Amino acid sequence: MEVTRQNFKDSLCPIYSAIEEADFLAIDGEFSGISDGPSVSALTNGMDTPGERYVKLRKHSMDFLLFQFGLCTFRYDQSQSKYLMKAFNFYIFPKPFSRNSPDIKFICQSSSIDFLASQGFDFNKVFRSGIPYLNQEEESQLREQYEERRSQVNGAGTPSYISPNSCKGPVNVPDEHKDFIGRVYSASCGDSCRYPKGIHVETVETEKKERFIQISKVDEEERRRMEQQKYEREQEEMNDAVGFSRVIHAVSKSGKLVVGHNMLLDVMHTIHQFYCSLPEELDDFKEVTMCVFPRLLDTKLMASTQPFKELITNTSLAELEKQLKEKPFKAPRVECSEGFQSYDTASERLHEAGYDAYITGLCFISMANYLGSFLTPPRSHISARSKLLEPFYNKLFLMRVIDIPYLNISGPDLQPKRDHVLYVTFPKEWKTSDLYQLFSAFGNIQVSWLDDTSAFVSLSQLEQVQIAVNTSQYAESYRIQTYAEYLQAKQKNTNINRKWAEDGWADASYKSAGMTSTCSRAHNR
Amino acid sequence: MEVTRQNFKDSLCPIYSAIEEADFLAIDGEFSGISDGPSVSALTNGMDTPGERYVKLRKHSMDFLLFQFGLCTFRYDQSQSKYLMKAFNFYIFPKPFSRNSPDIKFICQSSSIDFLASQGFDFNKVFRSGIPYLNQEEESQLREQYEERRSQVNGAGTPSYISPNSCKGPVNVPDEHKDFIGRVYSASCGDSCRYPKGIHVETVETEKKERFIQISKVDEEERRRMEQQKYEREQEEMNDAVGFSRVIHAVSKSGKLVVGHNMLLDVMHTIHQFYCSLPEELDDFKEVTMCVFPRLLDTKLMASTQPFKELITNTSLAELEKQLKEKPFKAPRVECSEGFQSYDTASERLHEAGYDAYITGLCFISMANYLGSFLTPPRSHISARSKLLEPFYNKLFLMRVIDIPYLNISGPDLQPKRDHVLYVTFPKEWKTSDLYQLFSAFGNIQVSWLDDTSAFVSLSQLEQVQIAVNTSQYAESYRIQTYAEYLQAKQKNTNINRKWAEDGWADASYKSAGMTSTCSRAHNR
Repeated sequence: MEVTRQNFKDSLCPIYSAIEEADFLAIDGEFSGISDGPSVSALTNGMDTPGERYVKLRKHSMDFLLFQFGLCTFRYDQSQSKYLMKAFNFYIFPKPFSRNSPDIKFICQSSSIDFLASQGFDFNKVFRSGIPYLNQEEESQLREQYEERRSQVNGAGTPSYISPNSCKGPVNVPDEHKDFIGRVYSASCGDSCRYPKGIHVETVETEKKERFIQISKVDEEERRRMEQQKYEREQEEMNDAVGFSRVIHAVSKSGKLVVGHNMLLDVMHTIHQFYCSLPEELDDFKEVTMCVFPRLLDTKLMASTQPFKELITNTSLAELEKQLKEKPFKAPRVECSEGFQSYDTASERLHEAGYDAYITGLCFISMANYLGSFLTPPRSHISARSKLLEPFYNKLFLMRVIDIPYLNISGPDLQPKRDHVLYVTFPKEWKTSDLYQLFSAFGNIQVSWLDDTSAFVSLSQLEQVQIAVNTSQYAESYRIQTYAEYLQAKQKNTNINRKWAEDGWADASYKSAGMTSTCSRAHNR
Repeated sequence: MEVTRQNFKDSLCPIYSAIEEADFLAIDGEFSGISDGPSVSALTNGMDTPGERYVKLRKHSMDFLLFQFGLCTFRYDQSQSKYLMKAFNFYIFPKPFSRNSPDIKFICQSSSIDFLASQGFDFNKVFRSGIPYLNQEEESQLREQYEERRSQVNGAGTPSYISPNSCKGPVNVPDEHKDFIGRVYSASCGDSCRYPKGIHVETVETEKKERFIQISKVDEEERRRMEQQKYEREQEEMNDAVGFSRVIHAVSKSGKLVVGHNMLLDVMHTIHQFYCSLPEELDDFKEVTMCVFPRLLDTKLMASTQPFKELITNTSLAELEKQLKEKPFKAPRVECSEGFQSYDTASERLHEAGYDAYITGLCFISMANYLGSFLTPPRSHISARSKLLEPFYNKLFLMRVIDIPYLNISGPDLQPKRDHVLYVTFPKEWKTSDLYQLFSAFGNIQVSWLDDTSAFVSLSQLEQVQIAVNTSQYAESYRIQTYAEYLQAKQKNTNINRKWAEDGWADASYKSAGMTSTCSRAHNR
């Protein structure tokens, strides 16, 4: 089902009940770009720690726009031994809600846009009909603005001058006009002013965006009714502005298993756009993520893990889906729910978020069911709540890290031994070939560039590490350290920075306060 | 005429001849956003100097994409006493040309995108069919890459290792494979190898993007012919990559009058995207602009200047076009050239760049002809080359500057007297009302905010300036300086910065070198 600004409100009920009844949910996002860094190789290093990778992704990827979101819900029908699915393909765009709402700027990366264009992506639908959204901070601000306006109009607040530059609130009555307005009021009420509290005041905007204050004489009952109507209208306006974020709130509140394929960026973008700016450090990100999505499963990580690793040669989504239809796997029995558009995997609408979410779900079901074949007696259906799936929970695939397969969202990350790794610094003219030559006596090596003048070099034999370090002692053009020495030096630098932060900057406290409130609120909706 | 990637090459000839035959050209651009600053009010200050405004626009507006360019050419047909026009509406997109071409990132501003969407703007056409482009530096780099590849393939260069991170060039033959390739070559030539220099080597890419080296045995004549073919193919590829920039080069080379409406941002974006990154300082920008567009005319500035100023109430493009059809003006006689799509001003396709360029041209003709009514005897047609137009040349409208109407591209800017202006600093809680209160004894004032804690305040009476400064001497919460004092303090800061720049940074020399080359080349094509 395609969901745009036009049919969003009518679709909300079906979306909520689809989430409610589902056994698990699959998601996918399409973005206006991937990496704002100079190049992917500069953005990723094979020896990145999970924390380093997170910091890079946060810095270089969050200014792109998530502009299509796929949500596919899967409900298992026991009686028919099959899944019923409902696919939603949302177009998302931060259309400014009013003059005082945030005017979002986002980056587009030509190569990503060109790629989506070649896949037939409909940009007009995004920009003309995308559903708006607010993150939690923006939502709070908007609610406060409405509250403030209400209290002002109802006479609780004090009208005040607002400087032209910040004049974004309601119309305020300048002192020099109060007298005039008072006289208009007396004149219209005259002596027959029988309504002691019977005045209804409202700011009205014409089609030409001219704003004026409308004052009506009403009796008490009428006034209450009008205020109630106005309140409801405002609530609806606010809900419209919160827009697509309501869908993510519902997913979050459901607490259900959320499946994605290579989903780290999807999760980061979803939280960043619809909840809060991402925290600076990985541990805080993990905490927020667990609040928003308490149970995640990444099919790319699952396919790269035992017992699937040996059976699956290509873990890209399209290839994975094909392989999981063949032996020893079985194509899952999934049908489209009544009244919902079905996707045909033969027609391959790859890179449409709704379709990608759908086949991600298929991959998950196939792999889950395959785990059932190891049980005695074997079972052909494994529920999304099965304990067999627990080893795969909350582990998000990490691309291009040599020895750390995943980011562990619900606990500490793996700490690979890097005893065979050397940290080498050299003149910026050096190329990979120079490194190969330098280490030619030490057998096979693996080079992970850090920047123009440094790289990690992995030796194949551990006992040669010390020899390499020793031989470098008298070298002038390059320098070799063990990975442990490198980490130590880095830790020292970080501590110095931290100390500065504690002494001088107010950043840290702000961050953790923001986190807590996000967390408690994620479950209150 | 709509021009996209699909029909661009076929349209070039008609475009070149339209420019060639024209008496003047009108242009307009549509952008993915206007201001990257926190808000327009923060971006513009009524007391900005032209230099300050330029720096702000350069900083906050150049990361947006100019994605639609309108060019309308006007040729006067003496015999029929009417203009013949040709309108071109170009869709522009920096589609990456190859794996090693720049992957441009650009910003989109939601409010601008939403506005264009509401006008029916076709984003799909931009992203799917936009014409690519290169600026001069990128073009040079590409030409060098081709040259380098040619010399390598022809055996003049030495094959060398290229590190994986920078492997973007041609396929190089690693030392360990040279022997193998040598053997293949001997085997295929065998003893009957009668072609001493008759080997043609070429890198071939299959549809699946697999690349391999194709070695063919050819005689000398055949070899030359193939090299020639290859050379021509490469030249065409390069021209395709330079793409839309070729149109701007042709406009520049023609040296013809280029008319725009409120055209400062159009000119800045055009130079930035198709020539070179904009220089840091205004004077250098003026120099580049005069190289690229030696004769500019801004219809918004013209309409805001005598004798038009008194006659025209609204200088927005759509309103101006309407007013210039009515007395004392006359709707110009303009017809669409044969074979070209005509625009109907009644159907108002405002904010399509080709249409906006067209009605900008109409406005210019009306106003130029009106100047003829002052001649004795009056003339109903004034040529685009008439001396009567000289006062309007190279003066670009400056929005929201109180006392400087235009940026003078071909000379020094106006230096308005600001003797009645005060520079006031105050606590950040202050609002405009506080400033009104502070100056309540001094009659009418005009406030131009600089930031949270400072503003310019213009007094209506000059003699009160010193009184205001004197009364502030004992104030603790705020501080008042004359505009002259403010300038002096600022100049001092700038000089300190300049000194640093000269001592430490290499920026300045790079800049002026780039400028000269841009200038000489702008006229060499």
